[in-house]
Amino acid sequence: MKKHNFYAGPSILPEFTKEKTAEAVMNFAGTGLSVMEVSHRSKEFVAVMDEAQALVKDLLKVPDGYSVLFLQGGASHQFLMAPYNFMNEKAAYLNTGVWSKKAIKEAKFFGEVVEVASSADANFNYIPKNFDVPKDVDYLHITTNNTIYGTQLSTEPKVDVPLIGDMSSDIFSRPIDVAKYDLIYAGAQKNLGPSGATLIIVKNDSLNKMERPIPTILKYQTHIDSGSMFNTPATLPVFASLQTLRWLKENGGIEAMEKVNIEKANILYDELDRNKLFTSTVPNKEDRSKMNVTFVMTPEYAELEKEFMEFATTKGMIGIKGHRSVGGFRASIYNAMPIASIKALVSAMQEFEKTK
Amino acid sequence: MKKHNFYAGPSILPEFTKEKTAEAVMNFAGTGLSVMEVSHRSKEFVAVMDEAQALVKDLLKVPDGYSVLFLQGGASHQFLMAPYNFMNEKAAYLNTGVWSKKAIKEAKFFGEVVEVASSADANFNYIPKNFDVPKDVDYLHITTNNTIYGTQLSTEPKVDVPLIGDMSSDIFSRPIDVAKYDLIYAGAQKNLGPSGATLIIVKNDSLNKMERPIPTILKYQTHIDSGSMFNTPATLPVFASLQTLRWLKENGGIEAMEKVNIEKANILYDELDRNKLFTSTVPNKEDRSKMNVTFVMTPEYAELEKEFMEFATTKGMIGIKGHRSVGGFRASIYNAMPIASIKALVSAMQEFEKTK
Repeated sequence: MKKHNFYAGPSILPEFTKEKTAEAVMNFAGTGLSVMEVSHRSKEFVAVMDEAQALVKDLLKVPDGYSVLFLQGGASHQFLMAPYNFMNEKAAYLNTGVWSKKAIKEAKFFGEVVEVASSADANFNYIPKNFDVPKDVDYLHITTNNTIYGTQLSTEPKVDVPLIGDMSSDIFSRPIDVAKYDLIYAGAQKNLGPSGATLIIVKNDSLNKMERPIPTILKYQTHIDSGSMFNTPATLPVFASLQTLRWLKENGGIEAMEKVNIEKANILYDELDRNKLFTSTVPNKEDRSKMNVTFVMTPEYAELEKEFMEFATTKGMIGIKGHRSVGGFRASIYNAMPIASIKALVSAMQEFEKTK
Repeated sequence: MKKHNFYAGPSILPEFTKEKTAEAVMNFAGTGLSVMEVSHRSKEFVAVMDEAQALVKDLLKVPDGYSVLFLQGGASHQFLMAPYNFMNEKAAYLNTGVWSKKAIKEAKFFGEVVEVASSADANFNYIPKNFDVPKDVDYLHITTNNTIYGTQLSTEPKVDVPLIGDMSSDIFSRPIDVAKYDLIYAGAQKNLGPSGATLIIVKNDSLNKMERPIPTILKYQTHIDSGSMFNTPATLPVFASLQTLRWLKENGGIEAMEKVNIEKANILYDELDRNKLFTSTVPNKEDRSKMNVTFVMTPEYAELEKEFMEFATTKGMIGIKGHRSVGGFRASIYNAMPIASIKALVSAMQEFEKTK
């Protein structure tokens, strides 16, 4: 049976990424050695790192004056590094759910956190807008897509302070204006590659303005100075990420990807709005995520949840159980998710509806 | 031509590890999905993490009361985490070279570092012994094997303070008495797997005695409480590491491995002591590393260095250039290095000698 991989992360990757990675695990760049057993300082691996950084700059149109890094530790590690490097005394955070809250928790270690707005009042099912950001904060931190609640910022808030974005779950899914940000970070394990690599895009001029001493490995400048090789990078995850970047480039880049992502999301949201059994958990259409589509049984059919889960499983759906804090279902439809899988899910929903 | 992989790290891995990893990159545990695109919370990946932790405990005979973790960031990240979690005001470090010095640099961020001994006076070509450790330090930190200089501690120093060991380059190469340590850490990329995974073995009772607040992600306790899944682990590197652990178990475990490692190292050191062209950089035989064999041209043949490098390359030797701070050559002969490759290197040295 064909499997449809809706995992929220680590999550579906292009066939191209899988095939090239499997190949390089056995024989990397014609060396006869595995990509796992080659020095990160070998010319073959240095070429991987260089091309990956260059492709990120190309695909996201990163302006001059920014550095691209591949570090370890995921977004959770960036929750620490961002304030360590950017927060003197006070920073602003937009609270759009669990991941924002984790970022806020770490930031509080370094000073005062102003929570400029929160959608906690409705279990984070919308994106707060029209909030004020104090002028004296060091930055505003946003989580651009919220995997658990299926919400996504449709655009950056207009602010006069530096902007930091956790884009773990929607980077490369749509064009972004990098110039608006001092720092962008993203764990690889949604739209890029396997977990273990973390993409950083940082504005060089924004660094080294802190009085706080920063441990060597937690300084962005350390990693910029060493071309992302201060310590041994996660070579295999970086190699796999490069394959996805090549695939993105080959398939028309970010603009083409966004077009398909809109089409994919519409197919699923249209069905949720039509099918009497299911309801999107995000009422404001503009706040609905194009990466994670969260939905529940419509209240009068609430008792069918378990039955639909079982039915969907027999149809090859994997990873569609919603996060426990929202319940119901979640279909994560990242870049690599084919339209065919989304149509298969919609078919399953329609078939199930007919039996009721 | 058969390649002989003498890279210092990332470095040679068992064929078993490569084959099983390549297979799982395409189809993991019969899921039809790649190990790269499966949730770390899926039952299939949780089984990987559980088995890896259990095999580490089994192979190293880890006593009760210790936790085994797979984190990210490599040893360099542990240079920070160790003092963050264990150093109140003062800690002792044995300085056996570059990696010790990096660990010392980070520790100084937290308080006073007592360098109990150093072999800097002879470019770290020996292991200092008979040093005193102040009784009031929080721990003594040692680097058990020094890749750059080809030295290795033959045994733990006898101390009355807690011991912390960076075993990145010799873990699983010989039995260790874990009970002597409060903390052992090791980047995976020598004897375990690809870079991106970091093995931690920590004594539970030794933690949480600090007054210093510790950021969530830098606390060992955070990762113990969440079974090494506080943040998404580097799933692919952990999977590959598990394959190496299975291979170790299948091949008789650590004791069998040590026997072979001694045999392998002896073949190479015997040749260095015999061949008039080459000289080991480590005069004290007991300090010679069984993982990294460093050597230079004997002074009267110094001008032959480049020629031998070229000659060895034509014989399939890869990664034998010595680190710039020692010069000459380095043959890293980790667990997965077959005796045949060491014999091939010895043959090349003998063949080269005959032409001179």
